Amino acid sequence: MRKKIEIWEVGPRDGLQNELDLLETSAKIELIAKLLKAGLKNIEITSFVNPKMVPQFYDAEDVLKHFKGFEDQGVVLSSLVPNVTGAKRAIESGARAVSVFMSASEAHNRANVNMSIEDSLTQLGVVSRSIQEQIDFFRGYIVTTFGCPYQGEVPIESVLNVCRAYLEMGVQEISLGDTTGMANPEQVKKVIESVQREIDGKARLAVHFHDTRGLGLANAYAAYESGITVFDASIGGLGGCPFAPGATGNIATEDLAHMFELFGIDTGLDFDILREANDYLGTLLHKKLPAALGKTDPVWKFRKSLS
Amino acid sequence: MRKKIEIWEVGPRDGLQNELDLLETSAKIELIAKLLKAGLKNIEITSFVNPKMVPQFYDAEDVLKHFKGFEDQGVVLSSLVPNVTGAKRAIESGARAVSVFMSASEAHNRANVNMSIEDSLTQLGVVSRSIQEQIDFFRGYIVTTFGCPYQGEVPIESVLNVCRAYLEMGVQEISLGDTTGMANPEQVKKVIESVQREIDGKARLAVHFHDTRGLGLANAYAAYESGITVFDASIGGLGGCPFAPGATGNIATEDLAHMFELFGIDTGLDFDILREANDYLGTLLHKKLPAALGKTDPVWKFRKSLS
Repeated sequence: MRKKIEIWEVGPRDGLQNELDLLETSAKIELIAKLLKAGLKNIEITSFVNPKMVPQFYDAEDVLKHFKGFEDQGVVLSSLVPNVTGAKRAIESGARAVSVFMSASEAHNRANVNMSIEDSLTQLGVVSRSIQEQIDFFRGYIVTTFGCPYQGEVPIESVLNVCRAYLEMGVQEISLGDTTGMANPEQVKKVIESVQREIDGKARLAVHFHDTRGLGLANAYAAYESGITVFDASIGGLGGCPFAPGATGNIATEDLAHMFELFGIDTGLDFDILREANDYLGTLLHKKLPAALGKTDPVWKFRKSLS
Repeated sequence: MRKKIEIWEVGPRDGLQNELDLLETSAKIELIAKLLKAGLKNIEITSFVNPKMVPQFYDAEDVLKHFKGFEDQGVVLSSLVPNVTGAKRAIESGARAVSVFMSASEAHNRANVNMSIEDSLTQLGVVSRSIQEQIDFFRGYIVTTFGCPYQGEVPIESVLNVCRAYLEMGVQEISLGDTTGMANPEQVKKVIESVQREIDGKARLAVHFHDTRGLGLANAYAAYESGITVFDASIGGLGGCPFAPGATGNIATEDLAHMFELFGIDTGLDFDILREANDYLGTLLHKKLPAALGKTDPVWKFRKSLS
């Protein structure tokens, strides 16, 4: 049997959150439908942040409600929630999978959510108690695991501290985030080794890389070598910062899946439909998305004819 | 002592060969001077192909002659030669380092140089006998080592066949080329293992990746894990095909070096001067080069201030 990996698709959430053009709800639904059709089984479909902070998610309730019942088909459609208010909104809209986040870096956590790590942990504890009876899947992101744009290095002990708290809250999956693309392959291996020892089989471990410095797939490969089988990625490689033109975002779903398929790992994805989803999203946003496979064919389709 | 890797800079040759805008000789010289100033010790500075085939190298003699004597400062400045005529021109202009190339794929070799592999081997044998008394460094590229755009898979036996021929010709270094970006990390490891067994210490082994499908640095990392210490790269990631807009070229010198420096490997390079070389080349070619580090800072320089 072929070995498998799973992709946690974050395009509709992490990908879109930095886009200043607000998409119509129907367009978001169409995008998510294409991603499902391509074979993605885990999709973060929206975020219940305050729409005053991130206007893109003005329609979180509507997007979530549209996909009510889809989980019965064996897919996980997650909503990101930042706090108790967001959690309440998500649950009221029927969320069955919820992701929470906080930074391993004190400086970044304060910049991002205006709270100390301790206060974030307390608040997420309240969130977890308020939702855990009502959902099937609970995921925790550890933001700035591999480096912080404000404080630089992030001590591994700070990462393990958040891990422990997430395990106590009962998360099924922890995702290690390289929020601003500072990770390198050797560091990835070391961090994963420490975190796996801490988790000790009590949750699944995923990785979440951004391609800011071109290292996204090298880091993903290093993570794979360390035994990781769940990878966050964004269709087309959407993401990045609207104020830094040319900055790339998450690693691209299609490029990541393509790498794995090339050496015999089963992703279960249809690359023609992924391309369709990439084209659709690019058209909506009036730009060419960064994914390499949006510009060229997969190796198995690529043939020049001799003229 | 920190571990080291070496970069074989191919920007002035592989990078420029697809550019339809012909650069002034003085601009090429200035670019090479910047690359030397940045600390690069191995640079492929020109190509003695027929200028009717690749007009960019109309001035191969002039570029080479300008750097006469530089090798005494411990750098290798190589000229690519395709055949006996090119070899003769290079030697007459004072070349002390020469690179030759041929494909491991019969179909690609015919498409590229209009010859069978057997005829290429015969011709390169003549080239090697005509130059080896006059040069200090002789390098052989094996083009399409990891896949061929015409025939698809390239049997490892075809790669080893070219290896053996190169060793008989007395090359000091063999570079495995992923000409159209078809390699993947697991394949890289397998091919390197086979080739190292064949070479058996009789020459140094280098790798030459293109980033066409975003896998360049992942492949380079896999090669590093397999013991490779010489990596071909191009400043800014220049390269690719002028007829395929958006297609990326060689892996970028600065992105590759940055990856290694992040985990403690010494590249000996000055990243500010690399950035300067990238900017200079981009200005000459009127475009933004693909390198990530042309758009963002290295991790060690990257800090946001808390506002």
